[in-house]
Amino acid sequence: MVPTVDGESLLAALDKLARIGAIEGGGCARLALSDEDKAGRDLVVRWMKALGLEVRVDAIGNVVGLRAGREDLPPVMTGSHIDTVRTGGRYDGNYGVLAGLEVIRALNTARITTRRPIAVAFFTNEEGARFQPDMMGSLVYAGGLGLNEAYAAADKDGVSVGDELRRIGYLGAARPGAIRPHAFIELHIEQGPLLDEEKVRIGVVESVQGISWTEYTVTGVSNHAGTTPMRLRRDAGYLAASVNLFARKLAREMGGHQVATVGALSLRPNLINVVPNRAVFTLDLRNTDEQRLREAEARVAAHVAEVAGEERLEVETKVLARFEPVIFDSALVDRVEHHARTLSLDTRRMPSGAGHDAQMMQRLCPAAMIFVPSVAGLSHNVKEHTEPADLIAGAQVLLNLLLDVAEGG
Amino acid sequence: MVPTVDGESLLAALDKLARIGAIEGGGCARLALSDEDKAGRDLVVRWMKALGLEVRVDAIGNVVGLRAGREDLPPVMTGSHIDTVRTGGRYDGNYGVLAGLEVIRALNTARITTRRPIAVAFFTNEEGARFQPDMMGSLVYAGGLGLNEAYAAADKDGVSVGDELRRIGYLGAARPGAIRPHAFIELHIEQGPLLDEEKVRIGVVESVQGISWTEYTVTGVSNHAGTTPMRLRRDAGYLAASVNLFARKLAREMGGHQVATVGALSLRPNLINVVPNRAVFTLDLRNTDEQRLREAEARVAAHVAEVAGEERLEVETKVLARFEPVIFDSALVDRVEHHARTLSLDTRRMPSGAGHDAQMMQRLCPAAMIFVPSVAGLSHNVKEHTEPADLIAGAQVLLNLLLDVAEGG
Repeated sequence: MVPTVDGESLLAALDKLARIGAIEGGGCARLALSDEDKAGRDLVVRWMKALGLEVRVDAIGNVVGLRAGREDLPPVMTGSHIDTVRTGGRYDGNYGVLAGLEVIRALNTARITTRRPIAVAFFTNEEGARFQPDMMGSLVYAGGLGLNEAYAAADKDGVSVGDELRRIGYLGAARPGAIRPHAFIELHIEQGPLLDEEKVRIGVVESVQGISWTEYTVTGVSNHAGTTPMRLRRDAGYLAASVNLFARKLAREMGGHQVATVGALSLRPNLINVVPNRAVFTLDLRNTDEQRLREAEARVAAHVAEVAGEERLEVETKVLARFEPVIFDSALVDRVEHHARTLSLDTRRMPSGAGHDAQMMQRLCPAAMIFVPSVAGLSHNVKEHTEPADLIAGAQVLLNLLLDVAEGG
Repeated sequence: MVPTVDGESLLAALDKLARIGAIEGGGCARLALSDEDKAGRDLVVRWMKALGLEVRVDAIGNVVGLRAGREDLPPVMTGSHIDTVRTGGRYDGNYGVLAGLEVIRALNTARITTRRPIAVAFFTNEEGARFQPDMMGSLVYAGGLGLNEAYAAADKDGVSVGDELRRIGYLGAARPGAIRPHAFIELHIEQGPLLDEEKVRIGVVESVQGISWTEYTVTGVSNHAGTTPMRLRRDAGYLAASVNLFARKLAREMGGHQVATVGALSLRPNLINVVPNRAVFTLDLRNTDEQRLREAEARVAAHVAEVAGEERLEVETKVLARFEPVIFDSALVDRVEHHARTLSLDTRRMPSGAGHDAQMMQRLCPAAMIFVPSVAGLSHNVKEHTEPADLIAGAQVLLNLLLDVAEGG
């Protein structure tokens, strides 16, 4: 008899966490290592302890709650993150962590002790909205980024990750990655429109798109907007605009899973009647295929060089993040599909367009992800929404899968 | 025997005024009605009084210094402005005002009393960098904008012109336009590259380009940059970029005096991995021909509507300023040319690409402008520069012309 997730408890927990850093429209702003993030962390740690988990905080602020097994084996781990973007929703990341806690609650209620230990984790700064790179905590956990480099990452005001970890009391003693899981499973909302459009309940995630984030700093010459003939302009904003349109065209031409976004842009002096002498902007390129992603990067670079030459601009480029596409463990992916179907839930195999902590954990152990629908695909948006029935169904799939893997050979 | 401008005195005065609000690189930041603008005003008013001028401040903060004539006739007026953009140079506006004071000094030294009075004025908020519309003081002076509307104009922080005039003590008692000049002559740096490129010393300004300033507020949907297929995007930043490129193409196609600039732009939420749901940006269009300017406006509006439709965006447009091209008084323009040539200075007839207070004064009386070269055409830039010999030559043309008009019939 498989225990059942307490749906009311899950929804209540999501609601309580969403009140911390709540913003107009129903969303959350808990930027990594901010006061709001600290308050969210404190709440989830209290819940972990109330469920009897042994809580370990590591040196990059990742928090792991451990539930002992019958044997002293590497734990089966689940989890996600609880930081948000500035205009975030209430489910992104939080859902995976709190559903993990509901699995623990269900096991406690049913007085089940699994063969392997079970761990529920939340990782530091998954979003990358305040500090780059994103997925920082899980990347450090998996050995892909050194602690000192991570500590040195600074936000726009020059405040560093190291200082903020100390300030909010989450620079822990544990070595990141000290617990090497037997397997890692992350439950998450899709953050895209496909499951909702196709009315499929469970997404079986086979892979994660590769991510390429570049910041461009363009220097031209500021000049009077009325008196400077077009042929003499050295307009830094023009290059930013040109890359925006080129990236759109490129993504459409390349098709498939290629996406491209200019999300951040600032001009200087930013006045109506002055040709901008400086533009700082970002480009986010993603593809499930590494070769195609490299092709996109190369074509953008060629376009930037061409426009910079024509307009006589200087361009500095800085890679803010670069991750190759990740393929999840096929056996574990099959188990996700199996358990969803056993619960009579429709499934769809798909790549993840967003980056997730699970892709970092795949470096350490077999990993996989479970997606639930996101209404209209709204994500990083206060209106992000998933139906309660889908939230509960996803948590039940997680429970059944964790039990299976924790008992298995 | 015509008196001579004291070049050293002119250069020293320009240098002293430039120290107020001085910024790195040699430029000035004296935004209209700021503390720095007040300090600049106080200094120039002290100089006016030291030269024996009767100083009148009007209800929009325009300052007029009057030198009595032999007859009680409307004065011949010269002047410009002393506010600057945020990254302004030291000559834009200031030069015309301080050269006017040097004309007064030269007349005082030579003990000449002209038939008509002579007035030196500086007008409030010519730049429009903090409050819109630009050329606000002279526009109110010429009756083109009501006082209450001008008072209500607010900067980005919601601070109004009326409040700032009171705060800095320049909400004067005089009615704007109470002094209706016999003629108005403005001396100014070109702010464009033509005189410098062609090594011509004096620009004889026949007209001023029409100006069309529009602010666009674009609303789309913020969404995850990795998971949202390109076809489903409603990217507000994309429209801003598209208008930038369209405006460049339009100006090149239309040729002639058509220019187009996207100078200010901000995105929201302005994050690397979020499709922008809001873009606010400005477009500055100018042409010497009103029909052509209207054509440019119509073509941009059609492009905005087309892209907004394709991308499913909402767009609000707000006209921040709209001035038709202005033709200066042809007899007065001829006198500018005559006096420059009498001083053996090369001349070139030209339109002004920038807006100037003189274009507003043309509504009240015959007006004209004298341009001197601007090295490399740099303008609204801390590196704006005009050679001392050119500054002095322009002031001498102004002196000779003012004497001529003040004595004439």
